[in-house]
Amino acid sequence: MSDEPAAAGTARWSDQRPVAFADPVYVAAVVDLLGAIAYGEISAFERLSEDAKMAPTLHDKAELARMASTEFAHFEGLCARLAELDVDPFAAMAEFGPPFEAFHRRTTPADWHEGLVKAYVGDGLAADFYREVAAFVDADTRAIILESLADAGQSAFVVDRVRAAIAADHRLGGRLALWGRRLMGEALSQAQRVVADRDALTALLSGGVDRPALDLVAIGRLFTRLTENHSQRMAALGLAA
Amino acid sequence: MSDEPAAAGTARWSDQRPVAFADPVYVAAVVDLLGAIAYGEISAFERLSEDAKMAPTLHDKAELARMASTEFAHFEGLCARLAELDVDPFAAMAEFGPPFEAFHRRTTPADWHEGLVKAYVGDGLAADFYREVAAFVDADTRAIILESLADAGQSAFVVDRVRAAIAADHRLGGRLALWGRRLMGEALSQAQRVVADRDALTALLSGGVDRPALDLVAIGRLFTRLTENHSQRMAALGLAA
Repeated sequence: MSDEPAAAGTARWSDQRPVAFADPVYVAAVVDLLGAIAYGEISAFERLSEDAKMAPTLHDKAELARMASTEFAHFEGLCARLAELDVDPFAAMAEFGPPFEAFHRRTTPADWHEGLVKAYVGDGLAADFYREVAAFVDADTRAIILESLADAGQSAFVVDRVRAAIAADHRLGGRLALWGRRLMGEALSQAQRVVADRDALTALLSGGVDRPALDLVAIGRLFTRLTENHSQRMAALGLAA
Repeated sequence: MSDEPAAAGTARWSDQRPVAFADPVYVAAVVDLLGAIAYGEISAFERLSEDAKMAPTLHDKAELARMASTEFAHFEGLCARLAELDVDPFAAMAEFGPPFEAFHRRTTPADWHEGLVKAYVGDGLAADFYREVAAFVDADTRAIILESLADAGQSAFVVDRVRAAIAADHRLGGRLALWGRRLMGEALSQAQRVVADRDALTALLSGGVDRPALDLVAIGRLFTRLTENHSQRMAALGLAA
């Protein structure tokens, strides 16, 4: 690769944009999508660094700090992509503050284990949702989105800690199972609000000349996949979905 | 460099340890030093992510989150080095929790600008101190320490924000100048406590057969350098030291 002339790498991305970017509604939808995910990442950073305070050991605290830093790195990648699209990343994110803050306000963990379950179940659900929506965008945008959804190290760590805690105290399993259901309900309610409020996102999911559409049957299937994956995550934690 | 046989990179670091590592007191001092800096980094992560909540804009919040993530990356580098020395990083850090937490408890910022001044002045002072102590250790350890002291992006951002705020409200300058003096006093008091409590660190600074010593005259000069650098940082912020 290093044999290629240096100039090959200097072509601006804007000179090579896919045809879809000629459609302002498509661009608006991509900007909305990247803005929503970016806001989600910075608010995940905030929430994880806040939850880190409840960590029972310095080691556990460092694990949450690592997850928070990973989310922040994803945030920076998404901001860089928005800047490539000549969009102020913070303007693109502004609209998504209220629904994300509402979600976090309604699902503030009462203790360390609720925080862990939220990190795992909440981020998993968000990742599933964005991965579904990413099917409707161009390949470059999709690649950036999928990269930002990579597991930030939650899974193995959270599964280990939550299963150990439930083994030590069975009543905890019942409480965390209820908590997982509440997270699912609040997440769906906010996601629905976001999509309904953003015309461009709705238009994206309605398809275009060269893009697939998400009809009611497909929405039903999407919902089924999201709930199935959620149940699998709850099972991995040893919790009834 | 890429022409070297791959095997050259696979030699364990422990096979090539400098002679100083044969002295258990030296090893204990290096472990203490790395442990202290590592604890400082994770507590800087915590403090910056906490202060990020006071940010007046999402952009400012992201700047503090970036600094926090940088501090966490330094923390991971220091932990990796401790692990190379066959030391549990969290055991090495344990002793340093109380002085760092005492410092942060006594210097909790009351608002966004106090947080910014603390990030700049406090981290600058800590970096100066560790850089001085790094002169007493082997080259590899020194390189790791200096890397972890690299500016996490504080300087330009904090100077810009604090100067703009003082320009808009001159009374703020007086309050922040007092705050800077308090930070200096609390930092020196905790640093003195750490060194006094740790025999190995004291021994390190007292020198060895093949290492320089820090005598009383040298300690006086060190103190002068620290206070001069502190005054320069305060001046950069537009504050009287």
